[in-house]
Amino acid sequence: MSKAISRFPVVGVDTLPEDLAARIKVISDKSGFVPNVFLAMAHRPDELRAFMDYHDALMEKPGGLSKAEREMIVVATSAANDCQYCVVAHGAILRIRAKNPQIADQVAVNWRKADLTPREAAMVQYAIKVALKAQEIGPEDHAALVAAGFTQDEIWDIGAITAFFGMSNRIVNMATIRPNDEFYSLGRDIPIKG
Amino acid sequence: MSKAISRFPVVGVDTLPEDLAARIKVISDKSGFVPNVFLAMAHRPDELRAFMDYHDALMEKPGGLSKAEREMIVVATSAANDCQYCVVAHGAILRIRAKNPQIADQVAVNWRKADLTPREAAMVQYAIKVALKAQEIGPEDHAALVAAGFTQDEIWDIGAITAFFGMSNRIVNMATIRPNDEFYSLGRDIPIKG
Amino acid sequence: MSKAISRFPVVGVDTLPEDLAARIKVISDKSGFVPNVFLAMAHRPDELRAFMDYHDALMEKPGGLSKAEREMIVVATSAANDCQYCVVAHGAILRIRAKNPQIADQVAVNWRKADLTPREAAMVQYAIKVALKAQEIGPEDHAALVAAGFTQDEIWDIGAITAFFGMSNRIVNMATIRPNDEFYSLGRDIPIKG
Amino acid sequence: MSKAISRFPVVGVDTLPEDLAARIKVISDKSGFVPNVFLAMAHRPDELRAFMDYHDALMEKPGGLSKAEREMIVVATSAANDCQYCVVAHGAILRIRAKNPQIADQVAVNWRKADLTPREAAMVQYAIKVALKAQEIGPEDHAALVAAGFTQDEIWDIGAITAFFGMSNRIVNMATIRPNDEFYSLGRDIPIKG
Amino acid sequence: MSKAISRFPVVGVDTLPEDLAARIKVISDKSGFVPNVFLAMAHRPDELRAFMDYHDALMEKPGGLSKAEREMIVVATSAANDCQYCVVAHGAILRIRAKNPQIADQVAVNWRKADLTPREAAMVQYAIKVALKAQEIGPEDHAALVAAGFTQDEIWDIGAITAFFGMSNRIVNMATIRPNDEFYSLGRDIPIKG
Amino acid sequence: MSKAISRFPVVGVDTLPEDLAARIKVISDKSGFVPNVFLAMAHRPDELRAFMDYHDALMEKPGGLSKAEREMIVVATSAANDCQYCVVAHGAILRIRAKNPQIADQVAVNWRKADLTPREAAMVQYAIKVALKAQEIGPEDHAALVAAGFTQDEIWDIGAITAFFGMSNRIVNMATIRPNDEFYSLGRDIPIKG
Repeated sequence: MSKAISRFPVVGVDTLPEDLAARIKVISDKSGFVPNVFLAMAHRPDELRAFMDYHDALMEKPGGLSKAEREMIVVATSAANDCQYCVVAHGAILRIRAKNPQIADQVAVNWRKADLTPREAAMVQYAIKVALKAQEIGPEDHAALVAAGFTQDEIWDIGAITAFFGMSNRIVNMATIRPNDEFYSLGRDIPIKG
Repeated sequence: MSKAISRFPVVGVDTLPEDLAARIKVISDKSGFVPNVFLAMAHRPDELRAFMDYHDALMEKPGGLSKAEREMIVVATSAANDCQYCVVAHGAILRIRAKNPQIADQVAVNWRKADLTPREAAMVQYAIKVALKAQEIGPEDHAALVAAGFTQDEIWDIGAITAFFGMSNRIVNMATIRPNDEFYSLGRDIPIKG
Repeated sequence: MSKAISRFPVVGVDTLPEDLAARIKVISDKSGFVPNVFLAMAHRPDELRAFMDYHDALMEKPGGLSKAEREMIVVATSAANDCQYCVVAHGAILRIRAKNPQIADQVAVNWRKADLTPREAAMVQYAIKVALKAQEIGPEDHAALVAAGFTQDEIWDIGAITAFFGMSNRIVNMATIRPNDEFYSLGRDIPIKG
Repeated sequence: MSKAISRFPVVGVDTLPEDLAARIKVISDKSGFVPNVFLAMAHRPDELRAFMDYHDALMEKPGGLSKAEREMIVVATSAANDCQYCVVAHGAILRIRAKNPQIADQVAVNWRKADLTPREAAMVQYAIKVALKAQEIGPEDHAALVAAGFTQDEIWDIGAITAFFGMSNRIVNMATIRPNDEFYSLGRDIPIKG
Repeated sequence: MSKAISRFPVVGVDTLPEDLAARIKVISDKSGFVPNVFLAMAHRPDELRAFMDYHDALMEKPGGLSKAEREMIVVATSAANDCQYCVVAHGAILRIRAKNPQIADQVAVNWRKADLTPREAAMVQYAIKVALKAQEIGPEDHAALVAAGFTQDEIWDIGAITAFFGMSNRIVNMATIRPNDEFYSLGRDIPIKG
Repeated sequence: MSKAISRFPVVGVDTLPEDLAARIKVISDKSGFVPNVFLAMAHRPDELRAFMDYHDALMEKPGGLSKAEREMIVVATSAANDCQYCVVAHGAILRIRAKNPQIADQVAVNWRKADLTPREAAMVQYAIKVALKAQEIGPEDHAALVAAGFTQDEIWDIGAITAFFGMSNRIVNMATIRPNDEFYSLGRDIPIKG
């Protein structure tokens, strides 16, 4: 019942190269805490930098999928991979982005029973297939997304976000990275919509 | 994105035989609402009565496993079965019984990474095996529980609770029974233990 | 190669509360023996009573699915769960109810190759999905049953019987409950239909 | 609900080359009927001849595993492959060879709960692994068989019989070959041993 | 990191009965080496003879599937069974038969991404289902092959070749039969087609 | 049977930002061709840059695992994910790094049967678990690596490389990225070691 952040060495943000320390400061100034995943990867600054760059290229890119949709992909596929850190942390972000205090728990337990629009359901179904059986993806899967109104660029986004967090999920599970206490309760007091 | 309680007919508590209506009133007086699972099963009073009797025989029995341990089994195995109602509803009860606002989410996403004592981990590991591969249960599984300090009576309880909620999970998923809104937030403001 | 009835304590019917002893006597008077599952659960009278009540609510309910159809669901899903007691015991009952000495073995080994009507095949296919992947049940599964002529009430029955025996299968496998010798041969001398 | 012997062409024994017709006559003279698998393969005489030769080389070889042990391997692995013809036909032979009217049903449903000696259990466990996950067979699996008293020659037999019937199971399932009615009841009236 | 040919006894071709020694000589004269599978099975001459007969009945039969198609089935299904000997040895033969230096690697890693014609894709899809889930084969699978232009005789061939190599794959994995060095490079210098 | 490089838009290296164009030129100058994965990701320069940075941080890092060991991880896990591009491309690099023309095919088909040292086998076994069941990674898995002589830093490398290529495998399968023809034959004429 250890409460260690990671089973690998954890070093302080102050040991990081200046660019990384500055980037993490922006995040912690905004959220009030340093997400543990950064502390757990800080012993590998080059990997951490590439990780943050890749994350931002996918999750902060203007246009395309909404921010809430992107987080919904993260929560659904991280749950499929049983990744505690990612479900708890991105569950919080999803609640906030979607302005919905229930959606993260619903998507994490069984997306088929979640309050999803048909567009969201098509998106999550595809993401789950990329997460669990990417080798079986075929033209019919892309056709279903096109039918649901997604552009080719958005289809790439769904798949690439799933693939990136598939990497993240595996690092977290390998290293047993612990979610910050703060994530559990964030966004839970948002009013329920009609 | 229907918010129906069930895909099968839902009848009011007032249509139930007196004994069942009275039992449900006790519950709703205490919690402030009628758990949807009762409404979803009310069109089958005889099944509902047996369901409640069986539930109480396992979950209210004096002695043996603690109430928190029993709820932990429910949450872990219902998550293994992707049962939204049971994870959300019993996750709330687990938070309250265990006086721990994080434990339900931890156990639901990946019990191996949850803050469990060795006793709890042995209990959950066995429960998951009964839930997913009961046919492979053998003497070595019971030996592991005995080594972790469980009595034969407690081992039966772990298995029987898992089996009962395995039934419940299947009914919920078949009927798409929706968790009450109240369950999502119950027990989330309990202080985190050191 | 133990021939014990259960790996948990087995107590005599005479130790049971009167109502349970009387119910079991009716069964043993009719069949000539006490099914081992009752003996194996007798150390838990409250659970046994709820078990019997639930069983009868589903399996003895007037109207709806035929008795043979109900037993066919039990045999097919118990085989999917590798439950020796349930396949052997309910296989016997299925042979008798269906007046067919081969149907139980066929359904137990591979229901797709069994002598089923289209209605029976649709019923068993749904039951197997509830038994093994209830979380994936969707509107298309219910539509297929409606197309095969099942009412909403009968669909509930198929799912609820599967769920109940999913519980029973897990208890049996956890406790290694042994089928009575009598079940193996019952109904095997029924003449084969054209 | 067709009762066809195979979904591929079925030709009479009289159309077979003399050597095959004579071999099958020996079998049908002894058992009183022509097992359907021969009729279903008769449209391919060269394959049928090789099939019979291979079968006899493994199943009629003097020494090594007992005849009952060989049939036990066939029933266990054919059940793992959901092969109706093989479970029903070889279940009959196993009952006769083992002089035990229950053993085939036990092994087919869940070998872990069957009345097996430790030697038989080790043998079946290995056979099931060859049937379902041969790629994961390693030195520890062979060591377990040696510890259970099997010679290298007998280990080969277990694996080769499993592999041969893995082929047979696939042909039967591809062609939907129907078991003869006679197999269902053969050996069921053998007295139960203490 | 043993380079043994088999974990079971390996005897020389000269110890074989004349007919087998002569058949293997024809093969080794043609290819320049004795394929290890023959050496690994030589301690069981009767099984080896039936194996060769069955192999030739399926793989050398005139008419029906092309030789390249037959080898494609072998490579695809042997890869699904993780059989190193069969993928390496028959990969070489497939390259030669198909006059294509890439096709074996493509089919072995992911047939869905290989350069297949629609006919070949339908054939491989069916073969993979026979290899991995033969019990689920149904009329719709045969209908798909008929729609792709296959005769009933060719459908049998696809299934029977898959079943035969399913046996071979299991024997190889059980015995850890090592591919000859020669197979790795055969057919790799064939020019790539436009 | 399309020979397209990707099902998403493919843009020329000349359209890339200077830094990326220059990096890719170094690679193509060295190998004689532009690996298709760069062309397939070029429509997303920010993602491509992060991808290359991450790749180099893991695969070009001085010290720790040998270059051949890193490529062995890539081939083994990409085969587990059925990723044609990665198995073919990194299979070529593995042959060259390991100076062994057979090792890539061996590891891709069944690493348990490959010519691995005990250290390599422990490494690949762990990598496969991270690739397929990262959620089940526990202290016993890390203990096995320590026992095999790996440092904590090397264990992170094994897991991180597996995770990164798990992402890459999913992108490739989602986009159907085609391996360059050159990869198939690279390193195949290396002499076989004793």
